[in-house]
Amino acid sequence: MKMKLVLGSLAVVVGAGYGAAVMAQAKPDVLVKQRQSAMVLIGKYWGPIAGMPTGKAPYNAERVATNAPLLEMLAKMPWDGFHENTKGENSRALPAVFTETAKFKDGADAMQRSLTNLVKVSKGTDEAATKAAIAEVGKTCSGCHETFRAK
Amino acid sequence: MKMKLVLGSLAVVVGAGYGAAVMAQAKPDVLVKQRQSAMVLIGKYWGPIAGMPTGKAPYNAERVATNAPLLEMLAKMPWDGFHENTKGENSRALPAVFTETAKFKDGADAMQRSLTNLVKVSKGTDEAATKAAIAEVGKTCSGCHETFRAK
Repeated sequence: MKMKLVLGSLAVVVGAGYGAAVMAQAKPDVLVKQRQSAMVLIGKYWGPIAGMPTGKAPYNAERVATNAPLLEMLAKMPWDGFHENTKGENSRALPAVFTETAKFKDGADAMQRSLTNLVKVSKGTDEAATKAAIAEVGKTCSGCHETFRAK
Repeated sequence: MKMKLVLGSLAVVVGAGYGAAVMAQAKPDVLVKQRQSAMVLIGKYWGPIAGMPTGKAPYNAERVATNAPLLEMLAKMPWDGFHENTKGENSRALPAVFTETAKFKDGADAMQRSLTNLVKVSKGTDEAATKAAIAEVGKTCSGCHETFRAK
């Protein structure tokens, strides 16, 4: 019965993620650690390509093509960690995560779409298009963080 | 010059991983956080399937098929975080990581192979073979942790 409730409320935020995987260990502190870990790894593989559209980092097509699929997969991992039972945990997640759930899900979906596009574009040889696709991903990061993450 | 040195020593431990991605941010504390994050996420997707071979968790073919490719990818992510410049950082990594580098790399490679096999087997319908493949992955986890991770 309790499991069903957990499944029900997770479904609200999971979106395109890998929700079923985490069912066995829904402790709030673990969920927070897991979602933060996903964000850390997104940062790891996003960091080296983030500056390419503006020239802050030199363009490296191979690196984009390597990192884009990793980011696409990692971007599915944080969401089931934003379970309602984590509201009281210490993190940078703002209360809006749990009140503006539709907007939160839209933000997650937008990131996912932008990364799927980046994966596709980065398989080609169009540098301008790849840079534009990277910039588009960047917008989805900051768009969500403004509303849902403490400074 | 410094960059070249960093590249050189990273190559020792990177193995089958995504080493090039992290070049832009090789601060020791960040590297530790990133490698620990990879391990946390490996735990997230490994946890729900780990108990299936012994019956501690009910067998769920779909979950195995979902989690195996995630694990296969995540298993490439920790290794470039074990850079020599992280020796002084607070973590559970034992000194052997930096002295028994060949054995460490063999352990990482064994995990990778076992996960590639699990991905393959879990696409089929052979429950016994899938359970055996899961058990094989488990051996590679504990095999490495015994030597390279503090209790």
